[in-house]
Amino acid sequence: MSRSSVPQLQLALDHTRLDAALDAADRLHEHVDIVEAGTILCFSAGVDAVRQLRQRLPEKTLVADFKVADAGSTLAELAFEAGANWMTVICAAPLATFASAHEVAQRYQGEIQIELFGNWTMDDARSWRALGLKQAIYHRGRDAQAQGQRWSQQDLDAMKALSDLGFGLSVTGGITPQELPQFKEIDVRAFIVGRALTESANGLATAAEFHQAIDSIWGK
Amino acid sequence: MSRSSVPQLQLALDHTRLDAALDAADRLHEHVDIVEAGTILCFSAGVDAVRQLRQRLPEKTLVADFKVADAGSTLAELAFEAGANWMTVICAAPLATFASAHEVAQRYQGEIQIELFGNWTMDDARSWRALGLKQAIYHRGRDAQAQGQRWSQQDLDAMKALSDLGFGLSVTGGITPQELPQFKEIDVRAFIVGRALTESANGLATAAEFHQAIDSIWGK
Repeated sequence: MSRSSVPQLQLALDHTRLDAALDAADRLHEHVDIVEAGTILCFSAGVDAVRQLRQRLPEKTLVADFKVADAGSTLAELAFEAGANWMTVICAAPLATFASAHEVAQRYQGEIQIELFGNWTMDDARSWRALGLKQAIYHRGRDAQAQGQRWSQQDLDAMKALSDLGFGLSVTGGITPQELPQFKEIDVRAFIVGRALTESANGLATAAEFHQAIDSIWGK
Repeated sequence: MSRSSVPQLQLALDHTRLDAALDAADRLHEHVDIVEAGTILCFSAGVDAVRQLRQRLPEKTLVADFKVADAGSTLAELAFEAGANWMTVICAAPLATFASAHEVAQRYQGEIQIELFGNWTMDDARSWRALGLKQAIYHRGRDAQAQGQRWSQQDLDAMKALSDLGFGLSVTGGITPQELPQFKEIDVRAFIVGRALTESANGLATAAEFHQAIDSIWGK
C-alpha cells in the first residue's frame, strides 16, 4: 500500500433544490477539501448543478456523482465539460463503459471513481486497475445505513484488499469522526460526509472534528 | 410464463438538449407506446425533462431512467412527483433501496423497473420478486454494443429464466426488427429503441417495422 497523503474531507451536496445546495456550498466550502454534486442534486437540477458549483468554486476539486452505468463517453463529456474533476461510474457498468469514460476523463485531466455497490469481485477490481483507474468509493448505502447496517470486518477487509491493489478509497455512508480509527490501515483518499454537515446547525464544528480526527490518526 | 399482452414499443430519449428531446417526442410519440426520459437527458436537463414530457404527453406511459443505486425514496419521489409512471433502479442497488423506491412507486400507482447490468444472480431476482417487483430491463449496453457484443444464448436463457419467475422484460441495446424472433419465448413487455428512431430520417418507417414484426410474431 502506498499512501500519497492524509485523507481529505468531501462535502456531498444531495439537495433537491439547487439554491439550497449552493447556499450549503457557500457556507461550508472553506471547511472541506472536495465538493460533490450528489446524484440527487444532479437529477434535480441537471448538470447545471456542476456548472454552477464550478463557477462559485473555481479552485475546488469537484465531483459529479453520476453513478454512470452506460453511455460512458457522453456522460463523461457532460460532467467534465461542466467543470467536474472526478466523475463516478458504478461497478455494475460494463468494462467498455469504464474505458470510454476514462478516455474522456483523461482528455480533461479528470479522473473516474468506481462506485462500489452490490456484487463485484477482486477480478473486476484488477480489470479496473488494468484500465488505469486509481480511485474507488466504498459505500455503506443511505438505505442500508437506515436499516442499521454497520461497517463490518468484511467491509474493512475488502477495503484493505483494494488499497493493496493500488486504489485510493473514498469512504461514505453516515461516517462519524469516532469511526475513523478503524480505517487506519486503508489508503483513504477522502471521507465523504453529507447531511452531518449540511443538515446540522453544528456543521462547521463537525467538519472541524473530522479534520482533528484525521490529523490525529494519519498525522500531518 | 404468463403473458399479459403483446410487447410494446418504447422510445428512449437520450438527448443532451431538452428542446431536441421534446421535438423528437412531438414527432414520434404517436408511433410508440411508451416514452422514456433517458439517463443522459435526465442528467442534462434534470427532472424537468420528465415534467415537460408529462405535460406534453398526459396519457403516455412515461419512464424516468434514473438507474437509482441509493436514496431510493428521495429519487422515486422526484421521478413520480414529476409525472413518471415507471422508474428504473439498477440491480447493484441494495435491497433496501428497491424496497424504499417500491414503496413510493406504489403510492403513485407507479412501478419500479430493475435495470440489469453486470453481476446479478437468480437469488437476487427471487428477492426482487418477493418485494413485489414485476419488471426488469435486459440490456445490451451502448458501450458493449459498440464493442460488437451480440445477443448470446446466455442472454436469452437468462431472460427466459426471469420470464419464468414472473418478470415482464424490457429489452434494449441496438435492437433491430429483424432480431425480434429470437425473443419469442420470453415475456417481453417492451422493446426499447432510441437512436434508430430519433437519429434517422426513417424513424417513422422504423417504428412501423417494429410494430409489424411484433404483430407477426406475437399476433394481435
